[in-house]
Amino acid sequence: MDIEVVLVNPVYEGNVGAVARVMKNFGYSGLTLVDPCELGSFARAMASHAHDVLETARIKTLEDVLIASNLVIGTTGIVGSRANVRAPYELARLGVKLSEMRGIASILFGAEDQGLSNEVLQECDIVVHVETSTRYPVMNISHAAAVILYCIASATTPAAKRTVATHADLDRLLQHTSEVLEAIDFPAHKRRRVLFNLRRIYGRSELSTSEVRTLRGILSRTELRVRR
Amino acid sequence: MDIEVVLVNPVYEGNVGAVARVMKNFGYSGLTLVDPCELGSFARAMASHAHDVLETARIKTLEDVLIASNLVIGTTGIVGSRANVRAPYELARLGVKLSEMRGIASILFGAEDQGLSNEVLQECDIVVHVETSTRYPVMNISHAAAVILYCIASATTPAAKRTVATHADLDRLLQHTSEVLEAIDFPAHKRRRVLFNLRRIYGRSELSTSEVRTLRGILSRTELRVRR
Repeated sequence: MDIEVVLVNPVYEGNVGAVARVMKNFGYSGLTLVDPCELGSFARAMASHAHDVLETARIKTLEDVLIASNLVIGTTGIVGSRANVRAPYELARLGVKLSEMRGIASILFGAEDQGLSNEVLQECDIVVHVETSTRYPVMNISHAAAVILYCIASATTPAAKRTVATHADLDRLLQHTSEVLEAIDFPAHKRRRVLFNLRRIYGRSELSTSEVRTLRGILSRTELRVRR
Repeated sequence: MDIEVVLVNPVYEGNVGAVARVMKNFGYSGLTLVDPCELGSFARAMASHAHDVLETARIKTLEDVLIASNLVIGTTGIVGSRANVRAPYELARLGVKLSEMRGIASILFGAEDQGLSNEVLQECDIVVHVETSTRYPVMNISHAAAVILYCIASATTPAAKRTVATHADLDRLLQHTSEVLEAIDFPAHKRRRVLFNLRRIYGRSELSTSEVRTLRGILSRTELRVRR
Protein backbone atom coordinates (compact mmCIF):
# COMPACT_ATOMS: atom_id res chain seq x y z
CA MET A 1 0.00 0.00 0.00
CA ASP A 2 1.00 3.63 -0.35
CA ILE A 3 1.87 4.90 3.11
CA GLU A 4 0.77 8.38 4.14
CA VAL A 5 1.95 9.70 7.50
CA VAL A 6 -0.58 12.12 8.98
CA LEU A 7 0.35 14.33 11.93
CA VAL A 8 -2.79 15.66 13.59
CA ASN A 9 -2.20 18.94 15.45
CA PRO A 10 1.57 18.56 15.93
CA VAL A 11 2.78 21.04 18.56
CA TYR A 12 6.59 20.98 18.25
CA GLU A 13 8.18 21.76 14.91
CA GLY A 14 11.27 19.72 15.83
CA ASN A 15 9.15 16.58 16.02
CA VAL A 16 7.64 17.25 12.59
CA GLY A 17 11.17 17.47 11.20
CA ALA A 18 12.28 14.32 13.04
CA VAL A 19 9.28 12.40 11.68
CA ALA A 20 10.12 13.61 8.14
CA ARG A 21 13.66 12.29 8.58
CA VAL A 22 12.65 8.85 9.75
CA MET A 23 10.05 8.64 6.96
CA LYS A 24 12.74 9.24 4.36
CA ASN A 25 15.04 6.74 6.12
CA PHE A 26 12.44 4.06 5.44
CA GLY A 27 11.63 5.25 1.93
CA TYR A 28 8.33 7.02 2.59
CA SER A 29 7.60 10.54 1.36
CA GLY A 30 3.89 11.21 1.81
CA LEU A 31 3.48 13.54 4.79
CA THR A 32 0.18 15.23 5.60
CA LEU A 33 -0.29 17.81 8.36
CA VAL A 34 -3.63 18.58 9.98
CA ASP A 35 -3.70 21.98 11.68
CA PRO A 36 0.05 22.00 12.39
CA CYS A 37 2.26 24.36 14.38
CA GLU A 38 4.44 26.82 12.47
CA LEU A 39 7.37 25.08 10.75
CA GLY A 40 10.68 26.97 10.80
CA SER A 41 14.40 26.41 10.90
CA PHE A 42 14.35 23.91 13.78
CA ALA A 43 11.96 21.64 11.86
CA ARG A 44 14.34 21.78 8.89
CA ALA A 45 17.36 21.07 11.11
CA MET A 46 15.68 17.99 12.62
CA ALA A 47 14.62 16.80 9.16
CA SER A 48 18.30 16.81 8.20
CA HIS A 49 18.45 15.49 4.61
CA ALA A 50 14.67 15.04 4.44
CA HIS A 51 13.90 18.67 3.52
CA ASP A 52 12.00 17.42 0.49
CA VAL A 53 9.54 15.46 2.66
CA LEU A 54 8.91 18.54 4.74
CA GLU A 55 8.56 20.84 1.74
CA THR A 56 6.12 18.61 -0.12
CA ALA A 57 3.98 18.01 2.97
CA ARG A 58 0.29 18.67 2.34
CA ILE A 59 -1.92 20.52 4.76
CA LYS A 60 -5.40 18.97 4.89
CA THR A 61 -8.41 18.68 7.11
CA LEU A 62 -8.88 15.40 8.94
CA GLU A 63 -12.06 14.87 6.96
CA ASP A 64 -10.18 15.07 3.66
CA VAL A 65 -7.60 12.59 4.97
CA LEU A 66 -10.30 10.09 5.90
CA ILE A 67 -12.04 10.44 2.53
CA ALA A 68 -8.83 9.90 0.55
CA SER A 69 -7.71 6.78 2.47
CA ASN A 70 -8.39 3.10 1.90
CA LEU A 71 -7.26 2.15 5.40
CA VAL A 72 -7.02 4.59 8.30
CA ILE A 73 -4.61 3.49 11.03
CA GLY A 74 -4.70 5.28 14.36
CA THR A 75 -1.83 5.22 16.81
CA THR A 76 -2.11 5.34 20.58
CA GLY A 77 0.23 5.15 23.53
CA ILE A 78 -2.63 4.04 25.77
CA VAL A 79 -4.25 0.70 25.06
CA GLY A 80 -7.71 -0.48 25.89
CA SER A 81 -9.08 -3.97 25.95
CA ARG A 82 -11.70 -5.64 23.77
CA ALA A 83 -14.43 -3.37 22.45
CA ASN A 84 -12.56 -0.25 23.60
CA VAL A 85 -11.72 2.40 21.02
CA ARG A 86 -8.04 1.91 21.95
CA ALA A 87 -7.98 -1.88 21.52
CA PRO A 88 -4.90 -2.36 19.35
CA TYR A 89 -4.21 -4.39 16.23
CA GLU A 90 -0.94 -6.26 16.74
CA LEU A 91 1.90 -4.11 15.38
CA ALA A 92 3.95 -7.15 14.38
CA ARG A 93 1.15 -8.12 11.95
CA LEU A 94 0.64 -4.67 10.46
CA GLY A 95 3.40 -4.94 7.86
CA VAL A 96 2.10 -8.22 6.47
CA LYS A 97 -1.46 -6.84 6.41
CA LEU A 98 -0.40 -3.76 4.44
CA SER A 99 1.79 -5.75 2.06
CA GLU A 100 -1.27 -7.76 0.98
CA MET A 101 -3.45 -4.74 0.22
CA ARG A 102 -3.55 -2.01 -2.40
CA GLY A 103 -4.48 1.65 -1.93
CA ILE A 104 -3.60 4.39 0.52
CA ALA A 105 -2.91 3.58 4.16
CA SER A 106 -2.94 6.72 6.32
CA ILE A 107 -1.16 6.41 9.66
CA LEU A 108 -2.39 9.06 12.08
CA PHE A 109 -0.30 10.42 14.95
CA GLY A 110 -1.85 12.78 17.48
CA ALA A 111 -0.47 15.85 19.21
CA GLU A 112 2.62 15.11 21.31
CA ASP A 113 0.97 16.00 24.61
CA GLN A 114 -2.42 14.37 24.11
CA GLY A 115 -2.29 11.84 21.31
CA LEU A 116 -5.35 11.19 19.17
CA SER A 117 -8.71 11.82 20.80
CA ASN A 118 -11.28 9.05 21.23
CA GLU A 119 -13.39 10.81 18.59
CA VAL A 120 -10.60 10.51 16.00
CA LEU A 121 -9.73 6.94 17.04
CA GLN A 122 -13.36 5.96 16.50
CA GLU A 123 -12.96 6.92 12.83
CA CYS A 124 -9.87 4.72 12.44
CA ASP A 125 -10.25 1.29 10.83
CA ILE A 126 -7.56 -0.14 13.08
CA VAL A 127 -5.42 1.18 15.90
CA VAL A 128 -1.79 0.25 16.54
CA HIS A 129 0.37 0.71 19.60
CA VAL A 130 4.08 0.28 20.25
CA GLU A 131 4.39 -2.08 23.23
CA THR A 132 6.42 -0.32 25.91
CA SER A 133 7.36 -0.62 29.54
CA THR A 134 4.45 0.27 31.82
CA ARG A 135 6.89 2.36 33.90
CA TYR A 136 7.37 4.94 31.13
CA PRO A 137 5.05 4.32 28.18
CA VAL A 138 5.14 7.82 26.67
CA MET A 139 7.31 7.68 23.55
CA ASN A 140 8.54 10.62 21.58
CA ILE A 141 6.37 10.83 18.42
CA SER A 142 9.34 10.40 16.06
CA HIS A 143 10.52 7.33 18.01
CA ALA A 144 7.06 5.79 17.72
CA ALA A 145 7.04 6.64 14.00
CA ALA A 146 10.49 5.05 13.62
CA VAL A 147 9.30 1.77 15.14
CA ILE A 148 6.01 1.65 13.23
CA LEU A 149 7.56 2.56 9.87
CA TYR A 150 10.37 0.04 10.48
CA CYS A 151 7.76 -2.67 11.10
CA ILE A 152 5.98 -1.82 7.85
CA ALA A 153 9.14 -1.42 5.78
CA SER A 154 10.75 -4.62 7.02
CA ALA A 155 7.63 -6.64 6.20
CA THR A 156 7.61 -5.36 2.63
CA THR A 157 11.34 -5.80 1.90
CA PRO A 158 12.33 -9.44 2.32
CA ALA A 159 15.52 -10.14 4.28
CA ALA A 160 18.64 -10.71 2.20
CA LYS A 161 19.45 -14.41 2.07
CA ARG A 162 22.89 -15.66 3.05
CA THR A 163 24.37 -18.54 1.10
CA VAL A 164 25.69 -21.04 3.60
CA ALA A 165 28.31 -23.68 2.89
CA THR A 166 27.03 -27.14 1.89
CA HIS A 167 26.95 -30.09 4.25
CA ALA A 168 29.71 -31.64 2.10
CA ASP A 169 31.88 -28.52 2.64
CA LEU A 170 31.48 -29.01 6.39
CA ASP A 171 32.26 -32.72 6.08
CA ARG A 172 35.50 -31.89 4.29
CA LEU A 173 36.33 -29.28 6.93
CA LEU A 174 35.79 -31.84 9.72
CA GLN A 175 37.79 -34.50 7.83
CA HIS A 176 40.60 -31.98 7.45
CA THR A 177 40.34 -31.14 11.16
CA SER A 178 40.50 -34.83 12.01
CA GLU A 179 43.78 -35.14 10.06
CA VAL A 180 45.23 -32.15 11.89
CA LEU A 181 44.17 -33.56 15.27
CA GLU A 182 46.16 -36.66 14.38
CA ALA A 183 49.14 -34.60 13.22
CA ILE A 184 49.26 -32.63 16.49
CA ASP A 185 48.92 -35.84 18.57
CA PHE A 186 45.56 -34.85 19.99
CA PRO A 187 44.48 -37.77 22.27
CA ALA A 188 42.87 -40.35 19.97
CA HIS A 189 40.03 -41.26 22.34
CA LYS A 190 38.87 -37.64 22.53
CA ARG A 191 38.87 -36.91 18.79
CA ARG A 192 35.38 -38.13 17.91
CA ARG A 193 33.86 -36.07 20.70
CA VAL A 194 35.74 -32.91 19.66
CA LEU A 195 34.76 -33.38 16.02
CA PHE A 196 31.13 -33.77 17.02
CA ASN A 197 31.32 -30.59 19.14
CA LEU A 198 32.80 -28.73 16.17
CA ARG A 199 30.00 -29.95 13.89
CA ARG A 200 27.41 -28.45 16.21
CA ILE A 201 29.35 -25.19 16.70
CA TYR A 202 29.62 -24.85 12.91
CA GLY A 203 25.97 -25.79 12.53
CA ARG A 204 24.98 -22.86 14.73
CA SER A 205 27.44 -20.54 12.99
CA GLU A 206 25.89 -20.82 9.52
CA LEU A 207 29.33 -20.72 7.89
CA SER A 208 29.68 -19.35 4.37
CA THR A 209 31.84 -21.08 1.78
CA SER A 210 34.53 -18.44 2.17
CA GLU A 211 34.52 -18.84 5.95
CA VAL A 212 35.03 -22.59 5.51
CA ARG A 213 37.95 -21.75 3.23
CA THR A 214 39.43 -19.46 5.92
CA LEU A 215 39.21 -22.22 8.53
CA ARG A 216 40.78 -24.76 6.17
CA GLY A 217 43.57 -22.28 5.48
CA ILE A 218 44.44 -22.38 9.20
CA LEU A 219 44.36 -26.18 9.15
CA SER A 220 46.63 -26.37 6.10
CA ARG A 221 49.17 -24.05 7.71
CA THR A 222 49.08 -26.09 10.91
CA GLU A 223 49.77 -29.30 8.97
CA LEU A 224 52.58 -27.65 7.06
CA ARG A 225 54.23 -26.37 10.22
CA VAL A 226 53.79 -29.62 12.18
CA ARG A 227 55.15 -31.88 9.40
CA ARG A 228 58.19 -29.70 8.77
CA MET B 1 20.12 -11.09 28.69
CA ASP B 2 20.80 -7.88 30.52
CA ILE B 3 20.93 -5.13 27.93
CA GLU B 4 23.54 -2.39 28.23
CA VAL B 5 23.40 0.50 25.77
CA VAL B 6 26.86 1.92 25.12
CA LEU B 7 27.31 5.25 23.36
CA VAL B 8 30.85 5.58 22.05
CA ASN B 9 31.95 9.21 21.69
CA PRO B 10 28.49 10.77 21.45
CA VAL B 11 28.76 14.32 20.12
CA TYR B 12 25.31 15.85 20.75
CA GLU B 13 23.90 15.88 24.27
CA GLY B 14 20.33 15.97 22.92
CA ASN B 15 20.86 12.57 21.33
CA VAL B 16 22.16 11.09 24.58
CA GLY B 17 18.99 12.31 26.29
CA ALA B 18 16.77 10.97 23.49
CA VAL B 19 18.47 7.56 23.70
CA ALA B 20 17.91 7.53 27.49
CA ARG B 21 14.22 8.21 26.91
CA VAL B 22 13.71 5.44 24.40
CA MET B 23 15.66 3.03 26.64
CA LYS B 24 13.29 3.71 29.50
CA ASN B 25 10.29 3.39 27.15
CA PHE B 26 11.35 -0.19 26.47
CA GLY B 27 12.27 -0.95 30.08
CA TYR B 28 16.06 -0.73 29.84
CA SER B 29 18.14 1.31 32.27
CA GLY B 30 21.80 0.38 31.76
CA LEU B 31 23.47 3.24 29.90
CA THR B 32 27.26 3.46 29.50
CA LEU B 33 29.07 6.38 27.92
CA VAL B 34 32.54 6.16 26.43
CA ASP B 35 34.29 9.54 26.18
CA PRO B 36 31.01 11.49 25.88
CA CYS B 37 30.28 15.15 25.20
CA GLU B 38 29.25 17.36 28.11
CA LEU B 39 25.69 16.60 29.29
CA GLY B 40 23.59 19.61 30.28
CA SER B 41 20.03 20.85 30.33
CA PHE B 42 19.25 19.91 26.71
CA ALA B 43 20.19 16.29 27.37
CA ARG B 44 17.85 16.30 30.36
CA ALA B 45 15.05 17.93 28.34
CA MET B 46 15.33 15.28 25.61
CA ALA B 47 15.43 12.50 28.23
CA SER B 48 12.03 13.79 29.46
CA HIS B 49 10.99 11.38 32.24
CA ALA B 50 14.15 9.27 31.88
CA HIS B 51 16.35 11.51 34.04
CA ASP B 52 17.22 8.49 36.16
CA VAL B 53 18.73 6.64 33.17
CA LEU B 54 20.86 9.67 32.40
CA GLU B 55 21.92 10.20 36.01
CA THR B 56 22.91 6.60 36.63
CA ALA B 57 24.85 6.35 33.35
CA ARG B 58 28.37 5.01 33.84
CA ILE B 59 31.39 6.46 32.11
CA LYS B 60 33.81 3.72 31.07
CA THR B 61 36.58 3.00 28.65
CA LEU B 62 35.72 0.86 25.65
CA GLU B 63 38.14 -1.76 26.95
CA ASP B 64 36.22 -2.04 30.23
CA VAL B 65 32.94 -2.40 28.32
CA LEU B 66 34.33 -5.24 26.23
CA ILE B 67 35.73 -7.05 29.28
CA ALA B 68 32.43 -6.83 31.20
CA SER B 69 30.23 -8.10 28.33
CA ASN B 70 29.14 -11.59 27.37
CA LEU B 71 28.06 -10.49 23.91
CA VAL B 72 29.20 -7.30 22.21
CA ILE B 73 26.83 -6.06 19.50
CA GLY B 74 28.03 -3.37 17.13
CA THR B 75 25.66 -1.17 15.13
CA THR B 76 26.34 0.26 11.70
CA GLY B 77 24.46 2.31 9.15
CA ILE B 78 26.73 1.00 6.38
CA VAL B 79 26.62 -2.69 5.59
CA GLY B 80 29.27 -4.87 4.06
CA SER B 81 28.93 -8.28 2.52
CA ARG B 82 30.31 -11.63 3.65
CA ALA B 83 33.65 -11.52 5.44
CA ASN B 84 33.46 -7.73 5.78
CA VAL B 85 33.64 -6.20 9.24
CA ARG B 86 30.22 -4.61 8.55
CA ALA B 87 28.45 -7.81 7.50
CA PRO B 88 25.28 -7.66 9.58
CA TYR B 89 23.47 -10.21 11.70
CA GLU B 90 19.78 -10.08 10.82
CA LEU B 91 18.08 -7.61 13.18
CA ALA B 92 14.80 -9.54 13.11
CA ARG B 93 16.64 -12.51 14.68
CA LEU B 94 18.48 -10.53 17.36
CA GLY B 95 15.67 -10.54 19.90
CA VAL B 96 15.23 -14.32 19.77
CA LYS B 97 19.00 -14.80 20.01
CA LEU B 98 19.23 -12.63 23.12
CA SER B 99 16.17 -14.18 24.73
CA GLU B 100 17.91 -17.57 24.65
CA MET B 101 21.12 -16.41 26.32
CA ARG B 102 22.16 -15.26 29.78
CA GLY B 103 24.65 -12.52 30.68
CA ILE B 104 25.33 -8.96 29.58
CA ALA B 105 24.70 -7.89 26.00
CA SER B 106 26.33 -4.54 25.24
CA ILE B 107 24.92 -2.70 22.24
CA LEU B 108 27.42 -0.17 20.92
CA PHE B 109 26.44 2.97 19.02
CA GLY B 110 29.12 5.18 17.47
CA ALA B 111 29.40 8.94 17.23
CA GLU B 112 26.53 10.53 15.29
CA ASP B 113 28.71 11.81 12.46
CA GLN B 114 30.96 8.80 11.96
CA GLY B 115 29.47 5.72 13.55
CA LEU B 116 31.68 2.99 14.97
CA SER B 117 35.12 2.65 13.40
CA ASN B 118 36.22 -0.55 11.68
CA GLU B 119 38.62 -1.12 14.59
CA VAL B 120 35.76 -1.11 17.11
CA LEU B 121 33.50 -3.21 14.86
CA GLN B 122 36.25 -5.83 14.62
CA GLU B 123 35.96 -6.29 18.39
CA CYS B 124 32.18 -6.84 18.20
CA ASP B 125 30.86 -10.40 18.30
CA ILE B 126 28.05 -9.50 15.94
CA VAL B 127 26.98 -6.38 14.06
CA VAL B 128 23.41 -5.27 13.45
CA HIS B 129 21.97 -2.76 11.03
CA VAL B 130 18.54 -1.21 10.62
CA GLU B 131 17.52 -1.82 7.01
CA THR B 132 16.75 1.56 5.43
CA SER B 133 16.11 3.13 2.07
CA THR B 134 19.31 3.45 0.05
CA ARG B 135 18.27 7.01 -0.81
CA TYR B 136 18.73 8.23 2.78
CA PRO B 137 20.23 5.57 5.02
CA VAL B 138 21.56 7.86 7.78
CA MET B 139 19.26 7.49 10.78
CA ASN B 140 19.29 9.64 13.86
CA ILE B 141 21.02 7.61 16.61
CA SER B 142 17.96 7.67 18.90
CA HIS B 143 15.73 6.48 16.03
CA ALA B 144 18.10 3.59 15.38
CA ALA B 145 18.14 2.82 19.11
CA ALA B 146 14.31 2.91 19.17
CA VAL B 147 14.06 0.33 16.39
CA ILE B 148 16.78 -1.97 17.77
CA LEU B 149 15.45 -1.86 21.36
CA TYR B 150 11.91 -2.42 20.08
CA CYS B 151 13.08 -5.52 18.21
CA ILE B 152 14.74 -6.89 21.35
CA ALA B 153 11.90 -5.98 23.72
CA SER B 154 9.16 -7.36 21.48
CA ALA B 155 10.97 -10.70 21.15
CA THR B 156 11.21 -11.06 24.92
CA THR B 157 7.62 -10.04 25.75
CA PRO B 158 5.15 -12.37 24.04
CA ALA B 159 2.21 -10.75 22.27
CA ALA B 160 -1.05 -10.64 24.23
CA LYS B 161 -3.40 -13.30 22.96
CA ARG B 162 -6.95 -12.42 21.92
CA THR B 163 -9.71 -14.85 22.73
CA VAL B 164 -11.77 -15.32 19.60
CA ALA B 165 -15.33 -16.55 19.46
CA THR B 166 -15.83 -20.27 18.89
CA HIS B 167 -16.86 -21.78 15.58
CA ALA B 168 -20.19 -22.65 17.20
CA ASP B 169 -20.70 -18.95 18.14
CA LEU B 170 -20.20 -18.07 14.48
CA ASP B 171 -22.57 -20.83 13.38
CA ARG B 172 -25.27 -19.43 15.64
CA LEU B 173 -24.59 -15.92 14.33
CA LEU B 174 -24.96 -17.15 10.74
CA GLN B 175 -28.11 -19.15 11.60
CA HIS B 176 -29.54 -16.00 13.20
CA THR B 177 -28.56 -14.00 10.11
CA SER B 178 -30.26 -16.57 7.91
CA GLU B 179 -33.50 -16.15 9.87
CA VAL B 180 -33.29 -12.36 9.51
CA LEU B 181 -32.65 -12.67 5.76
CA GLU B 182 -35.90 -14.62 5.55
CA ALA B 183 -37.74 -12.09 7.70
CA ILE B 184 -36.66 -9.17 5.49
CA ASP B 185 -37.58 -11.09 2.30
CA PHE B 186 -33.99 -11.23 1.07
CA PRO B 187 -34.11 -13.18 -2.25
CA ALA B 188 -34.02 -16.88 -1.31
CA HIS B 189 -31.69 -17.93 -4.14
CA LYS B 190 -29.02 -15.45 -2.97
CA ARG B 191 -29.08 -16.34 0.73
CA ARG B 192 -26.59 -19.22 0.74
CA ARG B 193 -24.06 -17.14 -1.17
CA VAL B 194 -24.44 -14.17 1.21
CA LEU B 195 -24.10 -16.38 4.27
CA PHE B 196 -20.95 -17.93 2.85
CA ASN B 197 -19.52 -14.45 2.18
CA LEU B 198 -20.29 -13.46 5.76
CA ARG B 199 -18.57 -16.58 7.10
CA ARG B 200 -15.37 -15.62 5.31
CA ILE B 201 -15.61 -11.93 6.33
CA TYR B 202 -16.06 -13.00 9.96
CA GLY B 203 -13.25 -15.53 9.62
CA ARG B 204 -10.87 -12.76 8.63
CA SER B 205 -12.20 -10.47 11.37
CA GLU B 206 -11.27 -12.73 14.29
CA LEU B 207 -14.45 -11.75 16.15
CA SER B 208 -14.50 -11.87 19.93
CA THR B 209 -17.45 -13.32 21.84
CA SER B 210 -18.63 -9.84 22.77
CA GLU B 211 -18.43 -8.67 19.14
CA VAL B 212 -20.58 -11.66 18.13
CA ARG B 213 -23.04 -10.58 20.82
CA THR B 214 -23.08 -7.03 19.37
CA LEU B 215 -23.85 -8.34 15.90
CA ARG B 216 -26.62 -10.61 17.21
CA GLY B 217 -28.08 -7.63 19.07
CA ILE B 218 -28.53 -5.89 15.72
CA LEU B 219 -30.16 -9.00 14.27
CA SER B 220 -32.56 -9.34 17.21
CA ARG B 221 -33.62 -5.71 16.89
CA THR B 222 -34.13 -6.16 13.15
CA GLU B 223 -36.37 -9.18 13.74
CA LEU B 224 -38.33 -7.36 16.40
CA ARG B 225 -38.92 -4.36 14.15
CA VAL B 226 -39.81 -6.41 11.06
CA ARG B 227 -42.25 -8.72 12.87
CA ARG B 228 -44.07 -5.85 14.58
